[in-house]
Amino acid sequence: MKQKEIKVTFTPAGRHVYVLPQTLLLEAAGRAGIALQTPCGGSGTCGKCRVKVVAGSCPATTTEEKRLGADAVAAGYRLACQAHVHSELTVDVPFDSLLEQEHSILVSSDDADVVPQPTVRKAYFELSQPDREHPDTDWSRLRNAIGDVTVSHSLLCRVPSFLRENGWQGTAVVSNRHLMALEEGDTREHLYGAAFDIGTTTVVGVLVDLANNRDTAVASCMNPQMSFGDDVLSRIAHIREHPHALPELQTAIVNTINSLLQQLARKAAIPIQSVYELVVAGNTTMQQILCGYDPSALGEMPFVPVFDRFRRVHAVDIGVAINHGADVSVFGQIGGFVGGDTLACMVATRIDTENGPALLVDIGTNGEIVLSCGDALYATSTAAGPAFEGARIQQGMRATPGAIEKVLVDQDVACNVIGNVPPIGICGTGLIDAAAQMRKAGIIDMRGKIVAPDDAGMSLPPKLRERIVAHEDGQADFMLATAEESGSDRPVVLTQKDIRELQLALGAIRAGINVLLKRAGLSAGDLTTVFLAGAFGNFIRRSSALHIGLLPPVDPQKIRSVGNAALLGAKLALLSEKERAYAEKLRQKATHIDLSLDPEFQMEFGMAMMFPGDE
Amino acid sequence: MKQKEIKVTFTPAGRHVYVLPQTLLLEAAGRAGIALQTPCGGSGTCGKCRVKVVAGSCPATTTEEKRLGADAVAAGYRLACQAHVHSELTVDVPFDSLLEQEHSILVSSDDADVVPQPTVRKAYFELSQPDREHPDTDWSRLRNAIGDVTVSHSLLCRVPSFLRENGWQGTAVVSNRHLMALEEGDTREHLYGAAFDIGTTTVVGVLVDLANNRDTAVASCMNPQMSFGDDVLSRIAHIREHPHALPELQTAIVNTINSLLQQLARKAAIPIQSVYELVVAGNTTMQQILCGYDPSALGEMPFVPVFDRFRRVHAVDIGVAINHGADVSVFGQIGGFVGGDTLACMVATRIDTENGPALLVDIGTNGEIVLSCGDALYATSTAAGPAFEGARIQQGMRATPGAIEKVLVDQDVACNVIGNVPPIGICGTGLIDAAAQMRKAGIIDMRGKIVAPDDAGMSLPPKLRERIVAHEDGQADFMLATAEESGSDRPVVLTQKDIRELQLALGAIRAGINVLLKRAGLSAGDLTTVFLAGAFGNFIRRSSALHIGLLPPVDPQKIRSVGNAALLGAKLALLSEKERAYAEKLRQKATHIDLSLDPEFQMEFGMAMMFPGDE
Repeated sequence: MKQKEIKVTFTPAGRHVYVLPQTLLLEAAGRAGIALQTPCGGSGTCGKCRVKVVAGSCPATTTEEKRLGADAVAAGYRLACQAHVHSELTVDVPFDSLLEQEHSILVSSDDADVVPQPTVRKAYFELSQPDREHPDTDWSRLRNAIGDVTVSHSLLCRVPSFLRENGWQGTAVVSNRHLMALEEGDTREHLYGAAFDIGTTTVVGVLVDLANNRDTAVASCMNPQMSFGDDVLSRIAHIREHPHALPELQTAIVNTINSLLQQLARKAAIPIQSVYELVVAGNTTMQQILCGYDPSALGEMPFVPVFDRFRRVHAVDIGVAINHGADVSVFGQIGGFVGGDTLACMVATRIDTENGPALLVDIGTNGEIVLSCGDALYATSTAAGPAFEGARIQQGMRATPGAIEKVLVDQDVACNVIGNVPPIGICGTGLIDAAAQMRKAGIIDMRGKIVAPDDAGMSLPPKLRERIVAHEDGQADFMLATAEESGSDRPVVLTQKDIRELQLALGAIRAGINVLLKRAGLSAGDLTTVFLAGAFGNFIRRSSALHIGLLPPVDPQKIRSVGNAALLGAKLALLSEKERAYAEKLRQKATHIDLSLDPEFQMEFGMAMMFPGDE
Repeated sequence: MKQKEIKVTFTPAGRHVYVLPQTLLLEAAGRAGIALQTPCGGSGTCGKCRVKVVAGSCPATTTEEKRLGADAVAAGYRLACQAHVHSELTVDVPFDSLLEQEHSILVSSDDADVVPQPTVRKAYFELSQPDREHPDTDWSRLRNAIGDVTVSHSLLCRVPSFLRENGWQGTAVVSNRHLMALEEGDTREHLYGAAFDIGTTTVVGVLVDLANNRDTAVASCMNPQMSFGDDVLSRIAHIREHPHALPELQTAIVNTINSLLQQLARKAAIPIQSVYELVVAGNTTMQQILCGYDPSALGEMPFVPVFDRFRRVHAVDIGVAINHGADVSVFGQIGGFVGGDTLACMVATRIDTENGPALLVDIGTNGEIVLSCGDALYATSTAAGPAFEGARIQQGMRATPGAIEKVLVDQDVACNVIGNVPPIGICGTGLIDAAAQMRKAGIIDMRGKIVAPDDAGMSLPPKLRERIVAHEDGQADFMLATAEESGSDRPVVLTQKDIRELQLALGAIRAGINVLLKRAGLSAGDLTTVFLAGAFGNFIRRSSALHIGLLPPVDPQKIRSVGNAALLGAKLALLSEKERAYAEKLRQKATHIDLSLDPEFQMEFGMAMMFPGDE
């Protein structure tokens, strides 16, 4: 199946990848580890992903000609978000187009119109020494220089000796009108903060240089609480049943955050004490466990969180190892399972400013859905389960080397595998692609059943028929890669149960979307924009998502992948107080819709599990 | 000498004391352990110290006739602050006249026109349980009931389980718009606070029932820091020289406070967790050591304190063992050595509302002096030393049984001894009395020298002459009690050095008064009121204080003993937020006068050490 893939080489990095025909240049670059700027979400409007094709043929689209101009197009310039791979290419990536980070999980905040105004600020001071004419107290002398701030008991204890040992000079770190730290000399250039998205399955953090408004490093890993259950309900149940489980789960996530922070600081070559704030966005369960607030009430009707507004906790109180005086700010929560991550996505997408009804779908282990229309904001969550993250799928895996992440079913099966190695499993995007393609080819029926080889229509190509493995109980598997094609000694198959898991996941999300649309009196066609958030939102094939019914039938052009918008929202809140106020405004405006006992939802769920018929 | 004393019996308590002729009934009662109300400071205007003479002769004054009416006087009623003992008496003390406390160190706050409005308040709540129609978060549900308050991380951790385990009911303890604690059931009746005066030599605290505005218990003891030096300068020097001395001194005072708090709670039969606030007044050095703020800068020019405004610190941060969420509020500081105790005295006396220039003299190891005149408030401090508290005097002692506390010198010496036992030493009031009487009798000259027996005038009665003990170096002692008269096997004497110590102490205070008067362009005759504060201010004989020149020459009627006004001020701040605001207003209005390098002060000091000539 490799014969179908096309080589693309990127300069000056010198990396190359093999991709399927029709692959976007943006995706090819991403697979080569080269993250490009896509603040417009890949709509071809911002022009920031500009690259230059220096060898090979790559026809320009009208969008590109319009955005770049005829001269630039003639010189080989293309927009990576618009140009597709048809033949072997060598592509030069200008420095300007690079996203300054190692992962492509962040959407840049550059065009979000953010004037940096972090909660944390630094003030350098040079005080006059007290004399008989000016015998002010130490504290009023300092306050006159840096503004009227409060101070903790322990820090005030250190003020007299600090001032005298450092010649009455130094740098004050102030947050929220509170003196957090005193530092020797002028350290104004060293002002860092971190934003974290704590997902049920993955945790990702970004270190931000607040003095220069610049991402410095990104790091991510699995959420260690996975060993206590792979969705929030099972973790809540675990906590309800085991009295000492809460501190155990809290310690697990705090240790992980600390180890990611260490990585970030190491990458940026800064001391961890220079990190003065951490802003966290996560779902209600993740946020409450992080803070040590018992999430037990989220495990039973009516699913009550502990807090709603933004909360600041002292980092030391929850064991987060950054500057000793620093706070951890945890996003406000909308209600039930709709927590800070959803609010952060709303902030990042500016969903309430769209010119028409806008839908936000954050695909994760919990799927959160927000519908903005006029002055109304509806928010809900549905338990999608971890299928999209590769869990509960027999050979599911995360989007790491060896994972099938794109599938083409024609006369035979062609797969794209991360890292360009023989496949050993399948990740979320691959699963959606496979199901869409299998449905198209008639290998699965509307109800999601993998047809037996004998029941398949006569038009099914023989190579595909051979890949259907029937079992004695009447169920069948579909072999994406044979044992010979695979990277292990066994084939990569999708089982009937895998398809059922997928149906449950997509049914839950689609049913949530449908209920919100009905609540607002809208139909899919009324939507102006569909924001697709989530760690793998950037890589999903829109046509596949539409084809399996994960998203309602809209013009694919209206779908905008916004990547890890929760992390971006957390970063925006880190960068500016105004963004926090905006978040609070959105939180107050949002109405939480509890689907758990909604009969309408149950009906929609049942129907949404079915694959749409062929148009 | 006992023959001169007169027996006074108090009913219904059934106690009796022996006192010198002319002793005030108020003093006699105090010595019997019966504290009477004297909110007017003993001026005969409030009528609250009303007692009934049931046996013996006790002529009424015109003040009494005016205040009580002819009928009451005829029935035997007298004002204890006006009536003197001339013959053996039996006195009935009405319950209304009793000060509800064991010590007479507090001035009642009853007439201070205080509407109780403590910082700490309690709110009982009964919340509705969350249901599908009202799935508010735990925290917003609670906040809706008790008001918009903040909450610490650790307390919010407990909120979910508290609400569910207690049927959504309980009592919230709120301080300064911050939730301090949650308690089971309705505990609104149990709301206590404590006010402490931390002096250089003594520490005294009062437990206040904030729900009913009532003093519950009083306790006092020596300041354990005495072992590190008996005045503030020696303790500051100790801290400057020993790096680990500050925590040592801090621990010493905190342990003492905790042990007094335990006593108070035991007396009131309440759990220590029901004490929700501690308000402390002390001089700058005492307050800073308590908080752990290095007082080293107070040991050198220009004597800079660490803070100026009221400070709240978490009780747990400094180790004070009251309610776990409680704060310790420390009084604002005016400057140099003029600290929170002085500010508290200013609050208690309402010094700025007097109809004319008013002087406040707080006599302690440090003497603080405040002059109010028009819109100006001047404050200063002078190092009086601990002579008035019995220290540095050869046979000095505190005002405890065995201490001579009143002296009459006529043909011979007559002493009043606390506890009516043979004397073993002399306390501060006795020292002032002795010096005044010895000066009157010509035993000491204007410069303070005890005259040699041969140099004494011929008019000196022989028994007095016999009490002068001349030494070979030309110096002499005066024997207040011979070895036979004393309660030990040695005589009680005042040495020449003792008189010198007294002169230093009174000279320092008088010089401070004179400098402030000059600064304001006033003379002693302009003063409307002289407030005499300090632990022993209630017992000082005004005529003696005037006679030795401790106070400037004013009409004795203008002198008002206000007892431990610092403790009363602390109690007022505990009782009402408005009192704190008033304190802050006074603090901002006050000008600190630094006498340390003032040449005028040095001159005044030298002159003030001399005893005034006989009028």
